[in-house]
Amino acid sequence: MSEVFVDRLIDAIRTGRPPICVGLDPMLEAFPVELQPKDHRDLDACVDALHAFCTGVLEVVAPVVPIVKFQIAYFEQFLWEGVRAYYELVREAQSRGLLVIGDIKRGDIGSTSDAYAAGHLAEIEFHDSDDVAVPDAVTINPFLGLDAIDPFLQVCKDEGKGVFVLVRTSNPGSRDLQDRLTDDGRTFSELIADTLQPIASSGHLMGRYGYSNLGAVVGATQTHTMSSLRKRLPNSFFLLPGYGTQGATGEMTRSAFDSDGLGAVVSASRSLLYPKRREGESWRDSVRRALDTMVSDIRSVVGKSS
Amino acid sequence: MSEVFVDRLIDAIRTGRPPICVGLDPMLEAFPVELQPKDHRDLDACVDALHAFCTGVLEVVAPVVPIVKFQIAYFEQFLWEGVRAYYELVREAQSRGLLVIGDIKRGDIGSTSDAYAAGHLAEIEFHDSDDVAVPDAVTINPFLGLDAIDPFLQVCKDEGKGVFVLVRTSNPGSRDLQDRLTDDGRTFSELIADTLQPIASSGHLMGRYGYSNLGAVVGATQTHTMSSLRKRLPNSFFLLPGYGTQGATGEMTRSAFDSDGLGAVVSASRSLLYPKRREGESWRDSVRRALDTMVSDIRSVVGKSS
Repeated sequence: MSEVFVDRLIDAIRTGRPPICVGLDPMLEAFPVELQPKDHRDLDACVDALHAFCTGVLEVVAPVVPIVKFQIAYFEQFLWEGVRAYYELVREAQSRGLLVIGDIKRGDIGSTSDAYAAGHLAEIEFHDSDDVAVPDAVTINPFLGLDAIDPFLQVCKDEGKGVFVLVRTSNPGSRDLQDRLTDDGRTFSELIADTLQPIASSGHLMGRYGYSNLGAVVGATQTHTMSSLRKRLPNSFFLLPGYGTQGATGEMTRSAFDSDGLGAVVSASRSLLYPKRREGESWRDSVRRALDTMVSDIRSVVGKSS
Repeated sequence: MSEVFVDRLIDAIRTGRPPICVGLDPMLEAFPVELQPKDHRDLDACVDALHAFCTGVLEVVAPVVPIVKFQIAYFEQFLWEGVRAYYELVREAQSRGLLVIGDIKRGDIGSTSDAYAAGHLAEIEFHDSDDVAVPDAVTINPFLGLDAIDPFLQVCKDEGKGVFVLVRTSNPGSRDLQDRLTDDGRTFSELIADTLQPIASSGHLMGRYGYSNLGAVVGATQTHTMSSLRKRLPNSFFLLPGYGTQGATGEMTRSAFDSDGLGAVVSASRSLLYPKRREGESWRDSVRRALDTMVSDIRSVVGKSS
């Protein structure tokens, strides 16, 4: 097997890329005016706009960051045509040297999770599928229990792919359930972390830097619990969404990183994709400027990895 | 607004249909041999088989049951072509007078759940989309909290649609998290039920029989907690998966029903779709026979509603 997911991510960071993930959340109504389709009920025109916008973003960010994340909901909004664009753009991102996370948050009973893992994480085996690809890693929802996760882990073992299990999400409502205390005093998120750790540290999933292909989603906004989750999941790379529009700063992510500046990637979507444009600035330049600002902020926290 | 989801479901049951939901889980490898595609790597042939099988099942069950459930994972396995088939078959089922649940188990931060609700529950507004449709109700995952659910509830209010929130799933692994006790002695599932009840009973979601468009998924296999959840969610219709292959019987679902035989639909998938065929029996006849057996079993529990 060639290099596994987590090692490819770490190699990219060790050779100088910032631990930043650009989240592709293509929201038509926020697109630059010159990319707006004339008619939002014209499916083909909408999907063309999706392509043009995401390709433009990929061009800007591919030379800078190691990894991008596609939020599949914004593609599913455009029915099967949007889903086709998702697979095409995953391929496009990979062809530009980027690692790709599919933010799919799936999870179901075992036999059904098998089907999700086949469609979203295992390499595509259909004929004539060279212009599409699946992501290198996906996010998964642990609510149904470990048997919901197993089929994805099997693909990690077989193909060197990665998963990020939701442990503590970035949204305000995450407190409704994830912050609740269990009868032994742990929060529900801490319970999930403790349940995952023996699996994350198992030999089949471990890469060569002490990190596992079983990662965790921990909202960058959740500073009150980040250290606790870091300690409970020492081998899991953290995907930290919520930077920017949702309110997180670089400083708030500090405890997710180890002393080598590894262990986490900070993810931002809307703040990078839809910054306020300056007079005369192209939309691509505005994305580049927003990314530069974020890179400086994150560098001030983790320094340059060596 | 015309009749809302939960009332249409109840009307169908009150006029004589059994409280049974047929789950469409199209697993290619389990298909009748005469429908098997020659080459499982030929995407078009696989999707043609999906269409042929699901259309055949719909023909058999449409005169009998009130509602079917499409498990979208088995369509996503076939990439965007499978997703297209999903929307086409939802339309096909509705055109045969069936109510349709999309078993999508989505749930994400608010802005992302907006996109899921737009793609999976709100009526399609794109031009030239007469041959496709979205379901009348979908399943949703509550792990991210109430803000993950709100966008779906908004569509329920605006369009009279329904949702079934996962409260206790049917799989063995559901005990890993959903059965854990919180610090006040309730299980996590009970906590979710109590959180949902004030919303379920709100006027915007209530139908005219005392049941709400906010329903709950409660595994038919989870007898130890069904009565407790029934009491906590008196206004929620229960979708009870897990009958048959997963081990649940009609008797195990008794406490989910009210004294009028309302309040729940029992869902079966594999046991109905893939029964052992008798010598010389057509696959459609074998499905019909399996369904007849289930109808008798469920009737023995709830009787005929009037």
